[in-house]
Amino acid sequence: MSSIPQPVQFGEAADQISRSQPAGPCVLVIFGVLGDLAKRLLFPALWNLARERLLPEQFAVVGFGRGDLSQQQFREQIRANLQDADGRRAGGAAEAEWLLSRLSFVQSDFTDADGYQRLAAALREVDQNRATGGNYLFYLATAPEFFLEVTERLGRADLLRQTEGRSRRVVVEKPFGRDLASARQLNRDLLRVAAEEQIYRIDHYLGKETVLNILVLRFANGIFEPVWNRRYIDHVQITVAETLGVEARGGYYDHTGALRDMVPSHLMQVLALTAMEPPSSFSADAVRNEQVKVLHAIPPLGARECGICAVRAQYTGGEVEGVRLRGYREEERVAPGSETETYAAMKLAVDNWRWAGVPFYLRTGKRLAARNTEVVIQFRHAPLTLFRAASVELPSANRLRVRIQPEESISLLFAAKAPGPRVTVRPVEMRFCYRDYFGQAGQTGYETLLYDAMNGDASLFKRGDMIEAGWSVVTPVLEAWESPLSPLCFYPAGSEGPEASNELLKRDGYQWMPLK
Amino acid sequence: MSSIPQPVQFGEAADQISRSQPAGPCVLVIFGVLGDLAKRLLFPALWNLARERLLPEQFAVVGFGRGDLSQQQFREQIRANLQDADGRRAGGAAEAEWLLSRLSFVQSDFTDADGYQRLAAALREVDQNRATGGNYLFYLATAPEFFLEVTERLGRADLLRQTEGRSRRVVVEKPFGRDLASARQLNRDLLRVAAEEQIYRIDHYLGKETVLNILVLRFANGIFEPVWNRRYIDHVQITVAETLGVEARGGYYDHTGALRDMVPSHLMQVLALTAMEPPSSFSADAVRNEQVKVLHAIPPLGARECGICAVRAQYTGGEVEGVRLRGYREEERVAPGSETETYAAMKLAVDNWRWAGVPFYLRTGKRLAARNTEVVIQFRHAPLTLFRAASVELPSANRLRVRIQPEESISLLFAAKAPGPRVTVRPVEMRFCYRDYFGQAGQTGYETLLYDAMNGDASLFKRGDMIEAGWSVVTPVLEAWESPLSPLCFYPAGSEGPEASNELLKRDGYQWMPLK
Repeated sequence: MSSIPQPVQFGEAADQISRSQPAGPCVLVIFGVLGDLAKRLLFPALWNLARERLLPEQFAVVGFGRGDLSQQQFREQIRANLQDADGRRAGGAAEAEWLLSRLSFVQSDFTDADGYQRLAAALREVDQNRATGGNYLFYLATAPEFFLEVTERLGRADLLRQTEGRSRRVVVEKPFGRDLASARQLNRDLLRVAAEEQIYRIDHYLGKETVLNILVLRFANGIFEPVWNRRYIDHVQITVAETLGVEARGGYYDHTGALRDMVPSHLMQVLALTAMEPPSSFSADAVRNEQVKVLHAIPPLGARECGICAVRAQYTGGEVEGVRLRGYREEERVAPGSETETYAAMKLAVDNWRWAGVPFYLRTGKRLAARNTEVVIQFRHAPLTLFRAASVELPSANRLRVRIQPEESISLLFAAKAPGPRVTVRPVEMRFCYRDYFGQAGQTGYETLLYDAMNGDASLFKRGDMIEAGWSVVTPVLEAWESPLSPLCFYPAGSEGPEASNELLKRDGYQWMPLK
Repeated sequence: MSSIPQPVQFGEAADQISRSQPAGPCVLVIFGVLGDLAKRLLFPALWNLARERLLPEQFAVVGFGRGDLSQQQFREQIRANLQDADGRRAGGAAEAEWLLSRLSFVQSDFTDADGYQRLAAALREVDQNRATGGNYLFYLATAPEFFLEVTERLGRADLLRQTEGRSRRVVVEKPFGRDLASARQLNRDLLRVAAEEQIYRIDHYLGKETVLNILVLRFANGIFEPVWNRRYIDHVQITVAETLGVEARGGYYDHTGALRDMVPSHLMQVLALTAMEPPSSFSADAVRNEQVKVLHAIPPLGARECGICAVRAQYTGGEVEGVRLRGYREEERVAPGSETETYAAMKLAVDNWRWAGVPFYLRTGKRLAARNTEVVIQFRHAPLTLFRAASVELPSANRLRVRIQPEESISLLFAAKAPGPRVTVRPVEMRFCYRDYFGQAGQTGYETLLYDAMNGDASLFKRGDMIEAGWSVVTPVLEAWESPLSPLCFYPAGSEGPEASNELLKRDGYQWMPLK
């Protein structure tokens, strides 16, 4: 024991490779290399990895896409992308050149068999020149309808066959399916051409940091776990709120909606981390086993319950700090009479020994009053006899707030006596900010994803059964919302959300934490 | 629920009178009115009460003492005292005059029967002039050997007889006895001439604020009480450390020592507040019942245990920030070969269902490295399988630190993940300072004591059985230390204390929280 907190250094988990050494030899193949994701995130992340000396000498990137570009033009375009992205960090010109010198381009449509033959030839050449040993990481930065097609064609071109010491992996972006049936079908189809451990389904919303922060908070502390259950917790609120509207994604979003876009993946992950039982290790499968287990404990909502326990809403025009914001139906590439929800809220149960009887309230939406991803654990009241004898009002119950975005912090609301001769109790806060202790990271979030995928660490990626468990929860709601009887509510852009969502909690005697 | 903490206002407890109104009519009689306590604390406190309009119109002060002063000279002396004390607060000249106009003086020895007759006459006169209704509060600001004598003589002069609506109370300063036998004897003797509810035994060390702060922290919060027991708490440390030496009190202190001076009263009160069961109300008796109950659960140390579980030490010369500090034996009015301890530490058990097996470590001393009164609750480790698989070192256990002096605060040490790809856990702190939320009070501490005694609120005063329970704990140690075989250790002035005290914890695998 000591007054100055001492660092406690852990070794890496068995399945975790220290980030002090570069990844193993491999070729990264990016499908949709000229698209937005590659431009904004993948190449800047590779550059950052190069600056941190985390890419091996035996490394290359092969771009696959439809653009009519020579090798030279392709490199010039990527160079321009990197220059655009350079706002983040200074320096690194040498590393950018190092990266560009390892770039090549295969021009092809995703559905053209010949293109995959040319890719195979390009990879053989790279293996020779760069000693990349036949290890390929195929990153599908494409629209979801190509996930299966590209994977199947890779299989047909014999590019997915792993042998001893030769890895072949496929990274699939979200969304993964549109509902339980389509997600299941996609999983089944993919597993015909690749093994589960070859498929890396991205869920980049929570970085590994956040996932581990929550696990460490819950399981490295002796005082939270004893009260982390139905006996002491009254209810849980999970919020993923954005201030942005649909931006340029109107075309995609209008066919998707807030529920599909956010709930099965992101909100279910936050819920799983909050509610899961302790895993036996930090290995990807140990953690994912527990996450799936707790998601399976959520009873699917019945058709009638969906009308009561789920709320859908869409933003209308609004004003924030004097700036007029468009309503959703006025956004680009959105149907003028669109019924797509930009906000979804629901009340779920987790019917296991730890949580039975504790409601979990979830909400997510665009164009809300603040950007805010957080979990609020509302504890039950203490027995208040002591205060009832003397009191006009009773002290508020404890509340633990685990803020994930925009800034990770943990704060505990508790009751303290206000000075003075009366017993006046006020709620006060103890707070801890990661940044105050540890400074800021400042990366794209894709560095770890790419590095982990190169090294075969799947802990940040979703297993098929997790994806399906998430869809199981929302599918009854999706189906209920297809009924013309299901009401769509509205909320002004920049507000706290629709009134119906407040009603959802009010019926149970609660209210949402204000977003701001 | 709301993001901005809202004040929760409590009404007063049934036995508690709101401080928004003045005390009831009464005469305050101060024995030893020309002494240090009256000068430094009682009169400044009265002045503050007057400024806050908390003294009634029907109020007077009668001083009782040996000084050869006319009424006029007496008032001038008190006026001078008030001027000296004025550093604390500006203004209030009118209230000082108001107070001085209500002052009178009875010149007498404490042992002179005639003086008590003159006091009775003076009180009759005041009752007539000031309509104080025969309510007298006798404050014994005298040396302890006069407590019984003065009280007996008050009884003989028929000044202690209460009738309906006429209160007669005696405030007794500490020390109350020198050991269990003498405290019991004093209680018995006092109770022959006055009822228990007439006797107000001061323990001003913890103000009412602090007492209530700890009760509210423990019992208004749902998340602390479930882990506040042997199942989750590893051990408890209670510290009352001073930087001052004996100052002008050498003559008294050398016959008393740290154990007698601090442990039965102050440390036992802190221990009782930390370890007690929840009372059924905030009434003085409900709280004191629980405090006595937990003190009775401390098994008295056996003669052999005293040698192992108690440490006595004395400060030697030292240096703090270049200033040379005298050793205890060099202090004024201290015997040159004095064996009196200025530091005491002990390990106690609390053998009840809540605490069995949890050691309580207590320490108190003068001339230590920092002024610090605090309770440290050291929780057990979480089950660490999850971390053991991956770890070089294990995360530290949670620790709740309730700081009482010099500044009230609460801080919680917990484990958080340090950023980076490895699972590195660091201890971090959440902290709450009363001052940050509520500002500073800045009074003598005697305002509440006087006001409460006038109003008959005994919650800040000790009941006879509490005093005796405190002495029961330390008496075996006092007896053991009388043996010439009992070692006296030494520590340099300005240090963290004697090595033997560190050894006391080290044997059990612990260490004291650093004082600074």
